[in-house]
Amino acid sequence: MTGTRDSGSKWSGGNCPLPLTDYPHIQIAHGGGGRLMRDLIRDLFRSALGTTHNTEMGDSALLPVLDGELAMTTDSYVVRPLFFPGGDIGSLAVHGTVNDLAVSGARPLFLSAGFILEEGLPMETLWHVVQSMAAAARDADVSIVTGDTKVVENGKADGLYINTAGIGRLHCDEPPGPGRIREHDAILLSGDIGRHGIAIMAARGELGFDLELQSDSAAINHVIASLYEKRIPVHCMRDLTRGGLATALVEVAEGSGLEMNILETDIPVLGEVSTACEILGLDPLYVANEGRFVVVVPEDSADAALSILRQHGPDLQPARIGTVTGNTTGRLVLRSLLGTERVLYLHSGEQLPRIC
Amino acid sequence: MTGTRDSGSKWSGGNCPLPLTDYPHIQIAHGGGGRLMRDLIRDLFRSALGTTHNTEMGDSALLPVLDGELAMTTDSYVVRPLFFPGGDIGSLAVHGTVNDLAVSGARPLFLSAGFILEEGLPMETLWHVVQSMAAAARDADVSIVTGDTKVVENGKADGLYINTAGIGRLHCDEPPGPGRIREHDAILLSGDIGRHGIAIMAARGELGFDLELQSDSAAINHVIASLYEKRIPVHCMRDLTRGGLATALVEVAEGSGLEMNILETDIPVLGEVSTACEILGLDPLYVANEGRFVVVVPEDSADAALSILRQHGPDLQPARIGTVTGNTTGRLVLRSLLGTERVLYLHSGEQLPRIC
Repeated sequence: MTGTRDSGSKWSGGNCPLPLTDYPHIQIAHGGGGRLMRDLIRDLFRSALGTTHNTEMGDSALLPVLDGELAMTTDSYVVRPLFFPGGDIGSLAVHGTVNDLAVSGARPLFLSAGFILEEGLPMETLWHVVQSMAAAARDADVSIVTGDTKVVENGKADGLYINTAGIGRLHCDEPPGPGRIREHDAILLSGDIGRHGIAIMAARGELGFDLELQSDSAAINHVIASLYEKRIPVHCMRDLTRGGLATALVEVAEGSGLEMNILETDIPVLGEVSTACEILGLDPLYVANEGRFVVVVPEDSADAALSILRQHGPDLQPARIGTVTGNTTGRLVLRSLLGTERVLYLHSGEQLPRIC
Repeated sequence: MTGTRDSGSKWSGGNCPLPLTDYPHIQIAHGGGGRLMRDLIRDLFRSALGTTHNTEMGDSALLPVLDGELAMTTDSYVVRPLFFPGGDIGSLAVHGTVNDLAVSGARPLFLSAGFILEEGLPMETLWHVVQSMAAAARDADVSIVTGDTKVVENGKADGLYINTAGIGRLHCDEPPGPGRIREHDAILLSGDIGRHGIAIMAARGELGFDLELQSDSAAINHVIASLYEKRIPVHCMRDLTRGGLATALVEVAEGSGLEMNILETDIPVLGEVSTACEILGLDPLYVANEGRFVVVVPEDSADAALSILRQHGPDLQPARIGTVTGNTTGRLVLRSLLGTERVLYLHSGEQLPRIC
């Protein structure tokens, strides 16, 4: 695992090693515990994912001894369509879980992968998804060490669902969290927001117009590791997924008990995203992302932290977007260019179709 | 967590804390990242599962420092019906992952839980499933430390699917595995086989006749811990799930490179199970279980190990069912009462409907 592999090469992983003429589609028997399942695990999953830490995919994996404190997380992925500009359900299933660990202040190490496959899923589709997972795991420098396969009847599961769980080791003794946030802390954002949600809607043809936009789906563990390596005192981090930037910061502000002020004009949004949001009546602050995070640091570390974000994402427009105040309201306040202020809340959940 | 809680009390956990009049069913918005999802996680999942190790369900959980070598596993659960005699998808999702860790020679410690919920699922159904998971986790002495919720459209996901991943700590430096099996080793079985598969078929009304039979779904980590506490040199273990006893032992024999002989008349099968299998034309050796395991130990530890199995499951008919021979065929040979011999192989996977 070098982390240097060109992710653009992920489709060049060769042909599916299972004989597609015999089994062009997933059958119920591929989850039945017999020969077909064994062949699927051995020839497709293990050959792509290289589960080096266990002797048999599907059993427990034995891990090397891990010193220090650990973090554990899980996420299921049900995105439609399975492939979208900038990613697919396989890469997303790696990025999402890697990022959950990373923003908890942990270095992601090991992932599990549980597949729920729909009867009739083209074997080649599964092969591409698993190849993409393998490439994403290599890029993020994590190992997929154990897995499971279930097959459900045709018409269920939208092709396939993936669950990944992950464990990682904390970078330092003081994990980040809302409770560590202090007055005057700076709020930094790692890049432009809203791309994933809009890209998914575009891929589904739900926009009503053509849009060339790539999801922001990406692993953020390397940039976060750099923050720790450069001794930035990270007070709090959140990755921006369902519910977008606003939801993440509302929860962080509530958890900290302090008021956070952010400036609308400092929040980077691509022109394509803001245009699409205007037409659809969506607020980009609530649109999903899969490769962005906010980080709260002391004022005197803000420039150093921002410089690290810029080194890792020179094209992403990382920015300082606000400040923690001394008010103990626990609210998130958005200030517009004209100076008007608006308190942001969690949305009801009904704004957007599911996009994760 | 005491492990002494009567699992029969799992339905007495009180009423669902979410106001069922407002939200009697799961809505797409319950997975949308907003207020509805937060309420669902806080009032239903966290209140039942008591995720003591993390500050917020859905984030990473911080784990206490774990000395020693770890094992990690994952499994998705897609069983229909959601409730069956002797268990439900919630208890099954705990037992299955606990058991995978246990037969790897690890003490199960922490579980993650990923839910894929179908729009329209009655909230009360979800509440019962989560209550049952909580009871099963208490009985097995494991903590469910982190989770995730996704909602998919009505018509998908058969009500709900659950993924659990788990980590555990190895009981000793020499984890069990087929490579440790030696000539003359004894093959022990922890109880009667085939109950889960037949109970599920009965619950689906697929038998064509009435049958009162409880699934064998149960956690086996406590009896396995006793084997290690009593210094039994465990050479290999497998839990019997999809594919049943035969599939597990075929894989073990293949992995060991040695021939295993088992005696048909020594394998405990309930009368109801063998009758149902006869009528349906099924071989109980290939029918699924969810609370049984085989353990291979040296000949001179066989009696002590069997006595421990009997203490933990006095009603389960644990038995010595065979012996490892010196032949290096890697085959599983079944001998009948009449002395005829039959080599057992993996089935193609098409014998049974999905039952896990």
